[in-house]
Amino acid sequence: MEKYVYFFGNGAAEGKADMKEMLGGKGANLAEMTNLGIPVPPGFTISTKVCDMFYKNDKQYPEGLREEVAETLKKLEKLMGKNLGDPKDPLLVSIRSGAAVSMPGMMDTVLNLGLNDAAVEGLAGITNNPRFAYDSYRRFIQMFSNVALGMKIDVFEEILEEMKNKKNVENDLDLDANDLKELVKLYKVAFKKSQGRDFPQDPTEQLWAAIGAVFGSWNNPTAIYYRKANDIRNVVGTAVNVQSMVFGNFGDTSGTGVCFSRDPSTGENVFYGEYLMNAQGEDVVAGLRTPMAISALSDNNPVIYKELTDIKDRLEKHYKDMQDMEFTIQEGKLFILQTRNGKRTGAAAVKCAYDMVKEGLITKDVAIERVGAEQLDQLFHPMISAKARKAVKAMCSGLNASPGAATGKVVFSAEDAEAWTERGEQVLLIRKETSPEDIAGMVVSEGILTSTGGMTSHAAVVARGMGTPCIAGCKSVVISGKTFTVNGKKFVEGDWVTIDGTTGEVFEGKLELEKPVITAHVNEFLSWCDDVRWTAEREGVEKGFYIRTNADQPEDAAVAFEFGAEGIGLCRTEHMFFAPEKLGFFQEMIVADSLEARKESLKKLLVLQKDDFYGIFKAMNGLPVTIRLLDPPLHEFLPSKEEDIVDLAGRLNITVDTLKTKIASLHEHNPMLGHRGCRLGITYPEIYDMQVEAIVRACCDLEKEGVKVQPEIMIPLVGTKEELSILRKNAKNIIEEVSRQSNVILDVKVGTMIEIPRAAITADEIAAYADFFSFGTNDLTQMTYGFSRDDIGSFLPAYRDQNILHHDPFASIDKSGVGRLVATGVELGRKVKPGMKMGVCGEHGGDPRSIKFFYETGLSYVSCSPYRVPIARLAAAQSVLANRK
Amino acid sequence: MEKYVYFFGNGAAEGKADMKEMLGGKGANLAEMTNLGIPVPPGFTISTKVCDMFYKNDKQYPEGLREEVAETLKKLEKLMGKNLGDPKDPLLVSIRSGAAVSMPGMMDTVLNLGLNDAAVEGLAGITNNPRFAYDSYRRFIQMFSNVALGMKIDVFEEILEEMKNKKNVENDLDLDANDLKELVKLYKVAFKKSQGRDFPQDPTEQLWAAIGAVFGSWNNPTAIYYRKANDIRNVVGTAVNVQSMVFGNFGDTSGTGVCFSRDPSTGENVFYGEYLMNAQGEDVVAGLRTPMAISALSDNNPVIYKELTDIKDRLEKHYKDMQDMEFTIQEGKLFILQTRNGKRTGAAAVKCAYDMVKEGLITKDVAIERVGAEQLDQLFHPMISAKARKAVKAMCSGLNASPGAATGKVVFSAEDAEAWTERGEQVLLIRKETSPEDIAGMVVSEGILTSTGGMTSHAAVVARGMGTPCIAGCKSVVISGKTFTVNGKKFVEGDWVTIDGTTGEVFEGKLELEKPVITAHVNEFLSWCDDVRWTAEREGVEKGFYIRTNADQPEDAAVAFEFGAEGIGLCRTEHMFFAPEKLGFFQEMIVADSLEARKESLKKLLVLQKDDFYGIFKAMNGLPVTIRLLDPPLHEFLPSKEEDIVDLAGRLNITVDTLKTKIASLHEHNPMLGHRGCRLGITYPEIYDMQVEAIVRACCDLEKEGVKVQPEIMIPLVGTKEELSILRKNAKNIIEEVSRQSNVILDVKVGTMIEIPRAAITADEIAAYADFFSFGTNDLTQMTYGFSRDDIGSFLPAYRDQNILHHDPFASIDKSGVGRLVATGVELGRKVKPGMKMGVCGEHGGDPRSIKFFYETGLSYVSCSPYRVPIARLAAAQSVLANRK
Repeated sequence: MEKYVYFFGNGAAEGKADMKEMLGGKGANLAEMTNLGIPVPPGFTISTKVCDMFYKNDKQYPEGLREEVAETLKKLEKLMGKNLGDPKDPLLVSIRSGAAVSMPGMMDTVLNLGLNDAAVEGLAGITNNPRFAYDSYRRFIQMFSNVALGMKIDVFEEILEEMKNKKNVENDLDLDANDLKELVKLYKVAFKKSQGRDFPQDPTEQLWAAIGAVFGSWNNPTAIYYRKANDIRNVVGTAVNVQSMVFGNFGDTSGTGVCFSRDPSTGENVFYGEYLMNAQGEDVVAGLRTPMAISALSDNNPVIYKELTDIKDRLEKHYKDMQDMEFTIQEGKLFILQTRNGKRTGAAAVKCAYDMVKEGLITKDVAIERVGAEQLDQLFHPMISAKARKAVKAMCSGLNASPGAATGKVVFSAEDAEAWTERGEQVLLIRKETSPEDIAGMVVSEGILTSTGGMTSHAAVVARGMGTPCIAGCKSVVISGKTFTVNGKKFVEGDWVTIDGTTGEVFEGKLELEKPVITAHVNEFLSWCDDVRWTAEREGVEKGFYIRTNADQPEDAAVAFEFGAEGIGLCRTEHMFFAPEKLGFFQEMIVADSLEARKESLKKLLVLQKDDFYGIFKAMNGLPVTIRLLDPPLHEFLPSKEEDIVDLAGRLNITVDTLKTKIASLHEHNPMLGHRGCRLGITYPEIYDMQVEAIVRACCDLEKEGVKVQPEIMIPLVGTKEELSILRKNAKNIIEEVSRQSNVILDVKVGTMIEIPRAAITADEIAAYADFFSFGTNDLTQMTYGFSRDDIGSFLPAYRDQNILHHDPFASIDKSGVGRLVATGVELGRKVKPGMKMGVCGEHGGDPRSIKFFYETGLSYVSCSPYRVPIARLAAAQSVLANRK
Repeated sequence: MEKYVYFFGNGAAEGKADMKEMLGGKGANLAEMTNLGIPVPPGFTISTKVCDMFYKNDKQYPEGLREEVAETLKKLEKLMGKNLGDPKDPLLVSIRSGAAVSMPGMMDTVLNLGLNDAAVEGLAGITNNPRFAYDSYRRFIQMFSNVALGMKIDVFEEILEEMKNKKNVENDLDLDANDLKELVKLYKVAFKKSQGRDFPQDPTEQLWAAIGAVFGSWNNPTAIYYRKANDIRNVVGTAVNVQSMVFGNFGDTSGTGVCFSRDPSTGENVFYGEYLMNAQGEDVVAGLRTPMAISALSDNNPVIYKELTDIKDRLEKHYKDMQDMEFTIQEGKLFILQTRNGKRTGAAAVKCAYDMVKEGLITKDVAIERVGAEQLDQLFHPMISAKARKAVKAMCSGLNASPGAATGKVVFSAEDAEAWTERGEQVLLIRKETSPEDIAGMVVSEGILTSTGGMTSHAAVVARGMGTPCIAGCKSVVISGKTFTVNGKKFVEGDWVTIDGTTGEVFEGKLELEKPVITAHVNEFLSWCDDVRWTAEREGVEKGFYIRTNADQPEDAAVAFEFGAEGIGLCRTEHMFFAPEKLGFFQEMIVADSLEARKESLKKLLVLQKDDFYGIFKAMNGLPVTIRLLDPPLHEFLPSKEEDIVDLAGRLNITVDTLKTKIASLHEHNPMLGHRGCRLGITYPEIYDMQVEAIVRACCDLEKEGVKVQPEIMIPLVGTKEELSILRKNAKNIIEEVSRQSNVILDVKVGTMIEIPRAAITADEIAAYADFFSFGTNDLTQMTYGFSRDDIGSFLPAYRDQNILHHDPFASIDKSGVGRLVATGVELGRKVKPGMKMGVCGEHGGDPRSIKFFYETGLSYVSCSPYRVPIARLAAAQSVLANRK
C-alpha cells in the first residue's frame, strides 16, 4: 500500500530534505532537522499526494489514509506520553500547510488543536496555569471555527471587545483566567448560534476538520491567484503538518523568536534576529511589545544562545545557504519549529554568495545560480530607502518599465521639463505617451510616467536605454491639462511625486532615495559569470556567449562599456537625426522634390553623421559595433501640430500647404507595417548610401589614427532575399569605393535583422547575402502575434486576467510562437552558413528568461540597454550553467 | 562533337516537334512539318544552346559552329540548286529568331539575305522582274542595317519619302524599277556615311552579322522586360532559323496569307483566315490593301485551297489543337512558313476544347488543361466590344482589381452615386479610396475606380464580391473635388468614362460593351472539371477538392450557388452591421457605458442578425456555411467626419463631446494589429454570444421547417490556443442552451481562422480546440511580410520594378514565405487531428496559381468571391490534373 504519512520525532524521521515535492518545504525540513538531532517537536506530515488525489477524486481521501493517520498519531502520543483529548494531560497539536514552493500567508493554520471542555481543565492543572489554558482554548475555538468552518473572525472579536469594555481593560493580557473562562463560554454560544450545534469536543473530529480545511485552502481564490501571479506550476498540492505544540508563553523561562544565519539585508556574516520572552509568535507579529535583538540572548541566556548558534551554524553548513529559522523556548528548553533558506535583498544575495565561495562553503557555479537577476538589478539603481518605504502606501501602480526610483516635481510636457530643469528644478515627466519629439525633455527628467503604452512603448524603450526610471501604462493617472488625478485626488504641476520603476509603484510626495554603490565584490562576482559565459561550448556555435548593448550615442556606449558590454548590438542611426541640427537637414531631405535636392541635404548630414559614428567606434575601442541603417517611416520626422508645421515650413522656405500635402502623402494607416526599414533603402537608395559612407569614413579615419574598428552594417526589416541582395550590393560598392579612396583596408560586415516572420521562414535564402543575423524580437513579436505594441493596452489586461498570456510577450519572449520563429531562423541560416554569427537586439535581450532561451537556441550574443548589461552577464552565466547539467 | 545545327528540307528534318527547347517553337514545328511531307521552304535551325553558350562564354560562339553552319548551308544550296551570292541565280534566305516560348515582336528578323550588287542583277534576270529584285534589295539593306548594325530606320524612310516627293507619287508601289535602283544607291551612300564603309557584299559576312543580331536581340531591354512581365523563366535563349526565301509577290499566281484551323474568336469549327495575292506579309500588316477571306480562295484557286485545307486538317489532327499558320504561294506553289497553336479568346478556348472532346480528338483532361482560368473569366463579365476596343487607346491604367468592363457617368461620392442612379443615370464611382460607409453607393455603380489602394483594398475586395468591375490604385487619375485630371486633361462630374477591370485600362467616353452569355457547353465543360475535383485523392486528406464562396448576404449566396459554389467559406458578419437599421443599434452598443446597456443594444441586433443568417442558410440549402464572428475594430463603425459625428450624437442622444471622447479612445496607431477579431470576443464576450445565439436560432428555425443546415462558426484572428479555448467554450455553451430550448439537435462546428503567423506556428496546440481551420491569407500575408495592404502602394511599384516581388503577394500567394506558414499550419493541425477539414478564405482562394498551391498543400477547399467560382472550379481541376502526373 502507498505511504501517505511520514513521522518525525525522537531523532529520526521517515522523510528528509530532498522530499520537498512530497512533504512540502516545511515538512521536509522538519524531517531533515529531526534526523540531524536538532530539537524539533515531534509530529508527522501528510503527503502532498493526498492533496492531489483529494482534488482528482471528487474531494475524497484515498483509502487507508484515516487508518494511517490514526496509527501515526498513536506513535506520536506514545512518544510524547500524552494523548489527544486526555482530560488530565492532553496532547495539543498544530496543523499547518506546507507546499513544495513557499506561498506565504496563502493557506491556513490551526494551533492548540485537541482542547475541549475537559482537556482544558487538565491542561490548567498540569501546567498549573489556568489563564494559559483558557487563553489557548479561546484562541483555538476562534481559529478552528474560522479555518475549519468558515465563521467570520469578527463574531469573536466583538465578544472580546465587549468583555474588555466590561472589564474596563485595554489589553487582552489584562484579562484574567476567569475572564477567559467566561469568554470561552460566550464563544461557544456564538458558535452554536452560527453552526446550530455545540462546539465539537471530539479531538479526532477536530483533527480531520482541520486537515480538510488545509487541503481545502489549496484551491481558495487567493492561493490560485498567488500561484498564477508567481507563475508557480507543476506543484500538485500542499502537505499537512501535524506537530505537537510547544509554548513560548509558559513564563519567564519561555520565549519565541525568528533568526537568520546572516544579515538578510546586507548579507554580512553576522547572526541576526529578534526574540521575546514569555510570548508566542503572534505577540511578535502584533507588535505590542518590542522584541530584543538576538545578541541580547547571549547575555540573558548564554546556554540557550550557545545551543541556538550551534544549531544555526550546523544548519547553514548543512544546507549551504543562509537559514531563516523559527524557535521556541519552553521552560528553558529550545525547540526549532522551522528552517528554510532565508529571503534576502539583492545586496545580501550577492554578498552571501560571494562570502560563501570565499569560505569554501559553495562553488562559484552555485554562487552564480543563487543570485536572482532581478536581485542584482537592485544594486544598479537608486531605491526608495527602506525607512521611507515603510512609512507610505503606493497611491497606484503601472507597468515597471524601467527600474530604479525617482522623485521630482511633476511637469506635463517635454518643453516644461527642459524649462524647469534649466532653472534648477528636479522634475518628473508625466505624459499620456511620449514621442521622438520629447527626447530632450526625457533626458533631463529624473523619471518618466506615462498613462498609456506598454513595456516596449516609446517611453519605456527610451527610458531603459538612458537608465531613467519609468512607469508606463499607469491607467489610474488621469491627465487633464497641467494636472492629473488619481482616484479622485488632484495633483498640479510642481507637486512632488516619487515613482519606483522597479515595482511600478507611484507615491505622493518626495521620498528619501538611496544611491546605488557597486562594491568590488560585486564586480568580482560578475567576473565569475563572465568566465562561465566565455567558456560556453555549444554544438555548431562559436565558443562563448556574449553581451552587447543597444547604444545610439557615444555617451551611452561609454556607460555600457563600463558595465561590461562586449560590443554594440544595436546602434539606431535615426536617433541621431533627432538632434536639432541634424533634424533640420533631415526634414529638408524628406521634403525635397527631386533626387538632386535630396542628395544636397544628405551631403550636409553626411558630415554630422560621420562624427556620431566616429565617437561611437572610438568609445568601443575595437569591439564590434552593429549599426542599423534608417528604420522608422519618414513621417516620424515631420511635425504634426499646426504651430510646428508653420514653423518648419518657414524654416524650409516652403508654403504651409506644400508641407501639409507632403505630410498627408506620408500618412499611413498602419505605419508599423508601412514604408520603413529597408523599404526606404530600396525607394531612396541615396539615404542608405549616405549612411554607409558616413560609417566607412569614420572607420577609415580611426584606423588611420591607430584605433581598431569592427563595423557591422545592419539592414532592417528585410523580408526577402532580393531586398538584402540589392542593398548589400549597394553598400559593398560604397565600402569598396570609400576605403579605396582612403587607402585603408577595412573588414566591414553587412548583415540583416530578422524581424519579419517571412525573414525567419526564409532565413536560408537570406543567409546567402548576410554576414550576420540580428533577431529584432520587438517587431517579430508584433508581427507574429499581430499585436501593435502601441495599441495592446486595450486588451492586454484582459488577456493577463484570463491567463491567455502568461507573460507580456514584449517583455519576455514567447517561446512557443515567436521563439519558434527565432529557432527556425537560426537553424535555416546556419544550414547555409555553418557557425554564422547571430544575436538578438530586441528588448528581450535584457530579460533573463529570454536570455536563457536565446542561449539554448544557439545565439552568439544578446544585446540590451546599458543598464541591463550586468543583469544580462549574470543571466547569461546562469543559462550556461543550467544547460551544462 | 556536339550538334548545333539542324537541317530541314526535302521531306526530312533532323529535328521534330518535341525539340522545342533546343530548336525553339518555330524551328521545331518547321522540322515537324518537313517530316510530315508538308511543303516547307528548306533551311536549318541553329540551336538555342548556342545562344546560351554565347552569353555564358563572353559572346563567343562555341567551337566548330562556323564549320557546321557552312556545311549545312552547302547542303541547303545543293538541295535548292542555288548558291548564296550567286550573281546569276542567288539563293536568298530569311533569318528569324524563335525561342521555346513565343515572345511576339520582341526579337529581330532579316529577310532577303544574300543580295548584293551582283546578285540583285542575277535575281532580276532569272525572275525577269527587276522591280521585284531591287525592291527586295532596298528592303534588305534597310532591314540589315537596322537589325545587324543598329542604324535608325528613319534614315532610310527619309530617303524614301524624298524619292516619292520627287516622283510625285504617294505609294511605294508606284515607284518603278529604276526608282528603286536609284533608291538602293542612295541607301548605300547613307550606309557609308553612317558606318564609314561600303555596304557588305559578302553574303557570308551578311549571314553571320544577322545571326549575331538575332542572338544579341535575346537580351535587349524589351525582351528582358517581356520575359519578366510574363514570368518566363528557364528558357535558355533563342534559336536562329535560316530558311530559303519564297515570295508571294511574284505576280498574280503568287500570294500570302494567315489562317486558323478554327475561328480564334468564337472557337467554331470553321476554316478562318485571310490572304492577299501578289503580296508579301508586310503588305497584309500595312493594311493598304484589304485582304480577302480564306473562303474566297476556294473559288479563286480551288487546287491550292484544297491543298491548304488538307494541310490544316492534317496539322490540327497531328497537333490535336487549333493551328495558326502562315503560308505563301509562289507562282502557284504552296509553302507553309509556320504553324503553331493558335491564340484564342476565352470563348474560343472553351468552345475548341469542348468540340475537340466531342470529336474524339482530345480527352476531357486535355480539354481542361487547355483553357486558361483567366480566359474562362472573360465569359462571365461584360467586355468592351472588339470593334469599340480597336478604335480607341486607353488614357491610363491601374490595377485590374475586379474583372469586366463598365461605362457610366463619373461621380465622386457614394451619396452622388445613389442620387444620380435614383434619377435613372448610369454611374461610374471614382474615389481616392472607399470605406465601409460607401457601400450603398458602390452597390448602385456600374464600376468603381480608385486612385490609391491595392488588390486587396476595400474597393477591390468589395467590388470582386459584388462582381462589379473595378480598377484600383490608378495613380494617373488625380482627383480634386468633383473633377479629375489624367495627364493634364480634365474631366468633370457627369462625363462618360469606360473602364476595363479585366485589364486595368481606363477609356474616355462611352464605349460599346458586350454582355456575357453562358451557353450550355460552358456548363458541361465546367461539370467535367467538377468530376476531376470531386474524385481527387490525396494522402491524409478527405476525398475531393471543393469550391466555396465568400458571401455576406442571401443574394450573394444565391449568385454563388448558381455559379456552382459548394458552400460558403466566409460569411463576414460585420458587413451585415453596415445596413442602416443595424448600424444604429451597433453604434449604440459601442457607445454604451455599461455591460447592461451593451446587452440591451445587442438584444435588438439579435433579432435582425438572426434574419440575415436565416436567409443565408436557406439560400445554401444544406451546404456548409462558415460564419466568421465580428472581426474589424469597433472604430470602423463610428463616423470620422464632423457632421456625421454631430448627427450620430443626436441620434444616440449623447453630447458630441462624449461621442468624440469615445471615438478618440478607440483610435489605434496600427488598427490592423489592434483590438479586433477574437480580441473583441475576449473583452466583449456579449457580442460573440449574441452572434452565436443568432446563428443557432436561425438554424433551429430552419431545421424545424425541414431545411437542413451545416453551420460552421469561425473565430477570427486567433493567435493562441487559450483564446480559442475560451471562446469555443462560450460558443458551445450557447449552442447547447439554445438548441436545448428549441428542442433541436444541431451539429454546429466551431473552428478558427489561421491568419496570424503565431497561429500557423502553433497550429498543433490550436487544433485541439478547433473543428476546422480556415486560412485567412490576406492577414497572414500582411503579417508575414509586415506589409499593410493599405500602405503598400508607396513602395510596391519600386518592388515590382526591381524584381523584388515577382507577384503582388496579396493577389497571388507567396509560396516560400506565407505559403510555408500555411503548409506548417496544415501539417501541425493534421498531426493532432488527422484528416481535419481545412480551407482558405483569403482573396487568394480565387487565384489559379494559388489554388494549385493550396491543393498541393492539402487544403480541402478554397473559398472565393461568387464571380470567381467558375474560374476556381477550372483551376482546381487543373491543379488535380497537374498533380496526378
